[in-house]
Amino acid sequence: MRAVDLIRKKRDGGEMTAEEIGFLISGATADEIPEYQISAWLMAVLLRGMTRAELAALTAAMLDSGERLDFSALLAPKVDKHSTGGVGDKTSLVLAPLAAAAGLYVPMISGRGLGHTGGTLDKLEAIPGFKTQLSLQDFHRVLEACGCAMIGQTAEIAPADKKLYALRDVTGTVESPYLICASIMSKKLAEGLDALVLDVKTGSGAFMKREEDAAFLAELMVETGRLMGKRVVALLTDMDQPLGRNVGNALEVEECIAVMRGEGAEDLKDLCVELAAWMLRLGGLGGGGANALENCRKLAGEIIASGRALDKFREMVRLQGGDEHVVDDPQRLPQARYRAEVLSPAAGRIAALACEQIGLASCVLGGGREKKDDAIDAAVGLVLHKKVGDSVEAGEPLCTIHYNSKARLEAARALLEKSYRIENASAAAVAGRELIQRVIGAEEGKGS
Amino acid sequence: MRAVDLIRKKRDGGEMTAEEIGFLISGATADEIPEYQISAWLMAVLLRGMTRAELAALTAAMLDSGERLDFSALLAPKVDKHSTGGVGDKTSLVLAPLAAAAGLYVPMISGRGLGHTGGTLDKLEAIPGFKTQLSLQDFHRVLEACGCAMIGQTAEIAPADKKLYALRDVTGTVESPYLICASIMSKKLAEGLDALVLDVKTGSGAFMKREEDAAFLAELMVETGRLMGKRVVALLTDMDQPLGRNVGNALEVEECIAVMRGEGAEDLKDLCVELAAWMLRLGGLGGGGANALENCRKLAGEIIASGRALDKFREMVRLQGGDEHVVDDPQRLPQARYRAEVLSPAAGRIAALACEQIGLASCVLGGGREKKDDAIDAAVGLVLHKKVGDSVEAGEPLCTIHYNSKARLEAARALLEKSYRIENASAAAVAGRELIQRVIGAEEGKGS
Repeated sequence: MRAVDLIRKKRDGGEMTAEEIGFLISGATADEIPEYQISAWLMAVLLRGMTRAELAALTAAMLDSGERLDFSALLAPKVDKHSTGGVGDKTSLVLAPLAAAAGLYVPMISGRGLGHTGGTLDKLEAIPGFKTQLSLQDFHRVLEACGCAMIGQTAEIAPADKKLYALRDVTGTVESPYLICASIMSKKLAEGLDALVLDVKTGSGAFMKREEDAAFLAELMVETGRLMGKRVVALLTDMDQPLGRNVGNALEVEECIAVMRGEGAEDLKDLCVELAAWMLRLGGLGGGGANALENCRKLAGEIIASGRALDKFREMVRLQGGDEHVVDDPQRLPQARYRAEVLSPAAGRIAALACEQIGLASCVLGGGREKKDDAIDAAVGLVLHKKVGDSVEAGEPLCTIHYNSKARLEAARALLEKSYRIENASAAAVAGRELIQRVIGAEEGKGS
Repeated sequence: MRAVDLIRKKRDGGEMTAEEIGFLISGATADEIPEYQISAWLMAVLLRGMTRAELAALTAAMLDSGERLDFSALLAPKVDKHSTGGVGDKTSLVLAPLAAAAGLYVPMISGRGLGHTGGTLDKLEAIPGFKTQLSLQDFHRVLEACGCAMIGQTAEIAPADKKLYALRDVTGTVESPYLICASIMSKKLAEGLDALVLDVKTGSGAFMKREEDAAFLAELMVETGRLMGKRVVALLTDMDQPLGRNVGNALEVEECIAVMRGEGAEDLKDLCVELAAWMLRLGGLGGGGANALENCRKLAGEIIASGRALDKFREMVRLQGGDEHVVDDPQRLPQARYRAEVLSPAAGRIAALACEQIGLASCVLGGGREKKDDAIDAAVGLVLHKKVGDSVEAGEPLCTIHYNSKARLEAARALLEKSYRIENASAAAVAGRELIQRVIGAEEGKGS
């Protein structure tokens, strides 16, 4: 088998066999096939697409390039949630302890933020002492002890993805839904899951801006997961404005703690309950009937209301070396030295928020990364006082900027001032988009 | 400017500026842009195509990556011919001396054979002592002295093409007509030409099997050459069967000598006269009127008939270190030790020849290369006694194999026995294809 012939096959729109795809992926991982051949193949995949069988083979080959975690000794179902990322997208910190409190196991391996989007690991690391780089043994130990554990990518999991992602990043081949699907699913399936809930974001702050692109990716991931024997459902959710009110690492931890206390922004609470309900449902809870999902929603609400989610979060923070007192005293989280407000230039109603720009403002403050190895400042960020549909008076604060550097403040302010579109319109005319736009795979997802 | 953004632009079907293309090509040549980015871009070009302006910019950037020869001190027009290659395609050895004998300059830089196709350099090197690796100074000296000189690719000419071609070869991006056009035209335009005649082959033994692909490439090359201020015409010619009767390096030199003596196969003679006529016409000969091309055909015929083409060939061979006596005594060319005949299994008429397979038979005998660095045996090859349309008796020789190794003979014989399709049909029913199928750019080509 020669790599050049496989590149040609994909270039001409042919269907590759699982063996051929395995040859390319194992060759790439072992550095036996040169990068210039892999990148030509990646571009051919981006422009030609893949069949479902090819995609399943690619996902399996990437999964098989590394270790698969084995939690089969843990008898309750293993579930996880993955989000395609956005601004203020912080549900993982609520969902992992919530599902663990319901008796499921959540072995969550997460990523870091890049550009305008945040990353779960960066948020967790805002908690003083919290370690995200556990060994796989320690990961297992925390998971067994408290039902959830949250760590970063390890060298053992899907090394092919690391190799391919590094190439995709510099060859304009990040955007292929097939390559995105294989990247996400190979890593998630390595977690030894029984079920996976996908939160696929769409809108101006999402990676997939257009709903049809997000829906297509969601369908690919649901199908691929099921072909590999997992229960998978995808929720298409809105990222046309930031989720919740806080953007920035420590600020987002604080908002998650509020949600687990039964407080916090409505949209964030609603999405947490909905995603949690699906995790519980796919984990076999809620009973078998037509009301199963509704039962799971209620169960999720009760777990929050009873304080069990927060207790579980506290336990996980402690087990992963973090300062558990932040849970009861969020002021222990890193605090920015200064605050400044962005005031509304006019009276009216918020018609739209430039979501990606708001994420970039947080990045500019030091809360995110422009390049992969940039250091980040956990304390800085934004608190949004007005979101789409809210009415505002001239001179009223639109948001508060938490900052540590004057120069960065001005750059962020310039972005934020251009991020609010204020119109003289009725509430109905500027209603925000539905938070949960569609559930993909709901019917089959109910079964186990 | 970042390479990844340029890759994305081409991936999405955008039109790149000359500056952007120049950035990529100079970065690739200087090894400043990594090969994995260049190969992703090449695949995007193959699948997305290029506009005429992009193609002209690519050709110019590749040309500018190296030296342009300057023969402006030589006052007669500089003309050349380039063929896309085929089996028995040997016209260069006739055309260069013929056009030089007409008073034009022919600074011809040629390539080697690969796979089933032969290469001009390999043929010239069948002449004992003939040097094809002249320095550019010696090239200039021979050209000035006798009006034609034939050498191999040098490191100074279009180094970007060497870099890109090596990558294309292993990334499935050889076949793009845009990349082929830029590769050919950048090298040919570096010769400091005034005019270029292109012989674009089509048929089973050609690189472009389908006439529409060959015609498209021909149009691209004619347009690109003209955008760069050159007089260019392309002839679409048949490669559904070998050209002439001899295939193999020394055997092809012998056949060219025969043509220059006024002998040799009709199709080869006809094509030489036609291509020469266009070279002379684009070189400004034949007068300005409606009969100019016909006048040039007559002039080409006269130059052969008078022996001036052969004299010029003899002179060039001597100046390039070769044994000029081969011209009068072709037996001095390398001779294979053995000969064997392939006999017709039936009576009938030759309905088709598997042209590529016949080229491969010569390659298998040792006359060609499977890989770039294979050594070749100048003596071996085939002499075809029957071509398409010829009638044949059972047991009559179809071709003679000149060989040096029994094992290779058998492999070649197996290929050749399957290469003749013999039918019981009338001459009209199995008439071969027109030798010259189309002239592209003829109207504009007439002007100067």
